[in-house]
Amino acid sequence: MHRVYCEQIPASAGQACQIEGDEAHHAVRVKRVREGERVELFDGAGVVAEAVIERVVAAKRSSAIEVRVGSVETRPPERPAVHVLAPAPKGGALEQMIDQLSQVGAASWALLRTERSEREPRSLERLRRAAIEAAKQCGRAHLLDIRPAIDLGDALRVGGRVVVADASGVGCPAIEGGEASVLIGPEGGWSDAERDRIADAGASVARFGPHVMRIETAAVAAVVAMLM
Amino acid sequence: MHRVYCEQIPASAGQACQIEGDEAHHAVRVKRVREGERVELFDGAGVVAEAVIERVVAAKRSSAIEVRVGSVETRPPERPAVHVLAPAPKGGALEQMIDQLSQVGAASWALLRTERSEREPRSLERLRRAAIEAAKQCGRAHLLDIRPAIDLGDALRVGGRVVVADASGVGCPAIEGGEASVLIGPEGGWSDAERDRIADAGASVARFGPHVMRIETAAVAAVVAMLM
Repeated sequence: MHRVYCEQIPASAGQACQIEGDEAHHAVRVKRVREGERVELFDGAGVVAEAVIERVVAAKRSSAIEVRVGSVETRPPERPAVHVLAPAPKGGALEQMIDQLSQVGAASWALLRTERSEREPRSLERLRRAAIEAAKQCGRAHLLDIRPAIDLGDALRVGGRVVVADASGVGCPAIEGGEASVLIGPEGGWSDAERDRIADAGASVARFGPHVMRIETAAVAAVVAMLM
Repeated sequence: MHRVYCEQIPASAGQACQIEGDEAHHAVRVKRVREGERVELFDGAGVVAEAVIERVVAAKRSSAIEVRVGSVETRPPERPAVHVLAPAPKGGALEQMIDQLSQVGAASWALLRTERSEREPRSLERLRRAAIEAAKQCGRAHLLDIRPAIDLGDALRVGGRVVVADASGVGCPAIEGGEASVLIGPEGGWSDAERDRIADAGASVARFGPHVMRIETAAVAAVVAMLM
């Protein structure tokens, strides 16, 4: 069943709703949805609805669909919520990381500013779009939240359990409580000053595999380990 | 320290060794290694040696380096050995999967033939090259082994613990013993007949995350979970 991202899902069954923009255009021109077809709507914040397409307006540049909503439900987010704070990996790997983090069930990603990382994405909007696409594919009811960039100092003070990925650590600590954050280091590794700050903050240091991992792989491995 | 893949590492310290071909060319032209520089040699089968570059022959199309070997050691493979049997993902994602599986510590990958998967790589040589590159980057002493394609029936009869990834499963089973295989389904999922064969074979069925994962992400998640 095709999934359609729709920020304003009607609150109750039986109501109709018009969907325009990219989402409608993609459903009509790429997925070729038809009148009478069932689709799943999701608002990315937990609301999921079954709907039937009542009208399709196909146009070259902008299409629209009108749907009538069947059952509407609100799904809770995954627990524990694992927040990933990581520098941007090289090249096109950032969008791909957002995609994989969505699939494995991370709650959010924020760019982590470290001494040895300078690369920053020009726009978070592109990444939010990647999170929507990923959620459509993998069946998430809640989008991976793309958060503003954060410095290491602030990252060490976020609420809940803070775990720092580093080869000096041992296995993954047990995650108790509903929230945890994992901090992934830059390609050059943490600086000595950063290691001191991490130790002073009392954060757990964990190792998520036997080898050196690139940022995007380490981030995915950490989320899998912390959710297992 | 630059790592150089070298199939024939001299058996004992003090011996010299000439390296030619792609590896030497990459070391000389891209990494710009110099005489007197220390490098690490690895043969991909556990032998790792420290070496010093004694001579660099830089040429436009083929370069060579001569090294003198210092200490030589043999490292054991990671245990448990996790073998991944998975269909080829779409597009360029196969090489990327080999890269990520190398980083997270999988022992091998083989193409799994299922009812709903038809895509097969034209050449395994390209994938072996990807495994060598990944091993250089992530510090593996043993290459991810690229194995011949296998049918589901045979895959269910390989030795050691066999775990099948599927949304119908629950968490990851404890892996006892030195060998385990994880079978990843195709994009369309296992067919009913395949599900019957899996049940008949008595394989464990496990789920490695809360959402639907693409082949390459599921494979990486499974290895991380099984090594944790």
